[in-house]
Amino acid sequence: MKKANVVIVGAGIGGVRAAQELAGKPDVHVTLLDRNNYQLFPPLLYQVSTATLATGEIAYPVREFFRSYDNVDFRLGEVTSIDVKAREVVTKNGRVPYDYLVLATGSTTNFFGNEEVARHAFPMKTMEEALAIRNQLIRCLELADQEEDEARRRELLTFVCVGGGPTGVEEAGAISELIYQSMRKDYHQLDFSEVDIKLLEGTGRLLAMMPERLSRDAARMLEKKRVDVCLETMVVGYDGHVLTLKDGRTIRTRTVIWAAGVKASPIVAALGADYDRSGRVIVNRDLSVKGLPRVYAIGDSASFVPAPDARPLATVAPVAMKGGICCARNILHEVRGETTEAFVYKDMGAMATIGRSSAVLSVGKIHAEGFLAWSVWLWVHLLRLAGTYANVTVALKWVLNYFNNARLGRIIVER
Amino acid sequence: MKKANVVIVGAGIGGVRAAQELAGKPDVHVTLLDRNNYQLFPPLLYQVSTATLATGEIAYPVREFFRSYDNVDFRLGEVTSIDVKAREVVTKNGRVPYDYLVLATGSTTNFFGNEEVARHAFPMKTMEEALAIRNQLIRCLELADQEEDEARRRELLTFVCVGGGPTGVEEAGAISELIYQSMRKDYHQLDFSEVDIKLLEGTGRLLAMMPERLSRDAARMLEKKRVDVCLETMVVGYDGHVLTLKDGRTIRTRTVIWAAGVKASPIVAALGADYDRSGRVIVNRDLSVKGLPRVYAIGDSASFVPAPDARPLATVAPVAMKGGICCARNILHEVRGETTEAFVYKDMGAMATIGRSSAVLSVGKIHAEGFLAWSVWLWVHLLRLAGTYANVTVALKWVLNYFNNARLGRIIVER
Repeated sequence: MKKANVVIVGAGIGGVRAAQELAGKPDVHVTLLDRNNYQLFPPLLYQVSTATLATGEIAYPVREFFRSYDNVDFRLGEVTSIDVKAREVVTKNGRVPYDYLVLATGSTTNFFGNEEVARHAFPMKTMEEALAIRNQLIRCLELADQEEDEARRRELLTFVCVGGGPTGVEEAGAISELIYQSMRKDYHQLDFSEVDIKLLEGTGRLLAMMPERLSRDAARMLEKKRVDVCLETMVVGYDGHVLTLKDGRTIRTRTVIWAAGVKASPIVAALGADYDRSGRVIVNRDLSVKGLPRVYAIGDSASFVPAPDARPLATVAPVAMKGGICCARNILHEVRGETTEAFVYKDMGAMATIGRSSAVLSVGKIHAEGFLAWSVWLWVHLLRLAGTYANVTVALKWVLNYFNNARLGRIIVER
Repeated sequence: MKKANVVIVGAGIGGVRAAQELAGKPDVHVTLLDRNNYQLFPPLLYQVSTATLATGEIAYPVREFFRSYDNVDFRLGEVTSIDVKAREVVTKNGRVPYDYLVLATGSTTNFFGNEEVARHAFPMKTMEEALAIRNQLIRCLELADQEEDEARRRELLTFVCVGGGPTGVEEAGAISELIYQSMRKDYHQLDFSEVDIKLLEGTGRLLAMMPERLSRDAARMLEKKRVDVCLETMVVGYDGHVLTLKDGRTIRTRTVIWAAGVKASPIVAALGADYDRSGRVIVNRDLSVKGLPRVYAIGDSASFVPAPDARPLATVAPVAMKGGICCARNILHEVRGETTEAFVYKDMGAMATIGRSSAVLSVGKIHAEGFLAWSVWLWVHLLRLAGTYANVTVALKWVLNYFNNARLGRIIVER
């Protein structure tokens, strides 16, 4: 029997899960493609960017998942487009033919067409970007320590996060703790009252997916951590030194972290299918792409509307993971001549941490905040990390960090 | 009382130790300068380059050492030269005046003037260089896995270490274990009999500082790990694909790791003092530089001859550490109008590991090899690492690596 050739583009949370579901199945051969040789766990990227976790703790070698499965091959390479006519994935080093295709290419930072902001602000979607932010945060403090001019020093000590979703909220809280708690004693001369950490949000509240009460709680927790939360504040420009707001005000800063939006990766955009306004491809109830037989899309690549008039599912890890399982099963159904199943997603709720020991949590009708929410957040993220080693060292670091604010990752390494 | 101004250039093992010795002393203020904000532990750099350890485990934030000592300030910056007339250290962002100066600038890779080799070979003296080697090793296997042409595949799978000192020996052993033990199961299609790991040494034996019997033992242990040890083999050129030897033979390879020599850092060379042929500055019995009052040099920067007709002390961590202590004491003696002490160094012997559970060790008349020597090596290095956290996680990784060859650091991250 000839095996069906399944190609999965993207070894993120959804792509790896789909491949795991197909691993060892006698009727398929899987080729998993990614430009990185590791699976990234994006929910903890902000902890790498703020010197708590190491790269290896949130990145797991893709090949490690499939060592015992001969029917899953990994291939390192950058996918440039999909040739749906020829049924081939086009990469920088050759074409890879498929019988079934899974698009799990994730999302990329959305600067909404503002080229100037894109050039000077720091995005935070990849490991390299998180490390660049870490280097920048530490370098700004080092330079400020040597800077005699107060205006230039304040510019170095002003850190702006743009976007009041979970990423912006978590990043702002983590920067506050890194600077005020972990690094304060490092600098004997620096006046920390000159530090200014801001979180800018365009709408009237943080964490739009949460009940309003939790949005207010999150803002209050951030203010307690000396983060200046600015709602109804839109950014229109940033030249590397001066951030300009829509109302004409300006903020002098060397560090703008852009967490204001994401869009589907450009590979998906070139498929020639139907898209939503974030560039996600519209999928059928079984996660196959509308109008493209044998092509599936999951996670941040897909726009799945669970019920008429409902909003598409959010771009969060659990949706990608469950989508990976469902599309793998549907490919097996197709291979075996069976009918496909509809994707059923039970909303797991939403969470965001605001630094050490505080968080907000919303699961169905249960809303929580503070230490309890933080404990839940901690366990959920710890157990979702791939690899026992990471579970152990991350737990160890969080404990260390909890009791003495240790951030031993505060080193600058660059190429 | 005006404090004496001590400037220490270099926050390596010697520089940090000197600053620690002066920390809290009421009659001195210390400025510690380095272009990195961390202290590197070079003896374990080869384990970062072969995906066993993480960057944060062998790099410790310099400021962490001096949080409780107001009289020690760290300053991030690149030193370009020393103005001995004006008694100032010249950095890229300004001049730093000193009453006493400690040169602890370490050493840099010596390509012996071969520009072509310098351009294409991988040195391994810095964290960035170790990470570049790690990326290269993994990328070569990934590319080989996709390469249909046998000659090009063998070129990708040939790894050459040049230099039979401890670094070359340890690196070759570690590459063998990374590839044959940890990564073999990662690649379902790749034929590992095409892998070729070579260690080239110009003289007639490895580990010149060891007794001859241990040199032979080391070669035998490496051969057992399938490393091709080539003695009396001199490199004359390398263009990125073809390595040319002195006898005219060539080796096709994409990866040449250069551990064939070091020289003192160029800052020392510009002092205008007396040097040995590795560019180390000649120091007096109290570690002060000949002819330059109030200037001390330690570790890899200094050439210290312990007795007439003896060879200068080796460029190893214990010499730098003990030198740091001695020069700090001598500065305090000078500040207090006392006479300085002579540097007395008791040789601690030499060690080198050849992968997991084998090593050679020579301490005075005691020579050992195999598991016992490896256990001693392990404990000595574990306890020398700065920071309890690193002690714990490195121990954990070594245990994991010992029992199941886990190398979870085998991810490619670059800028």
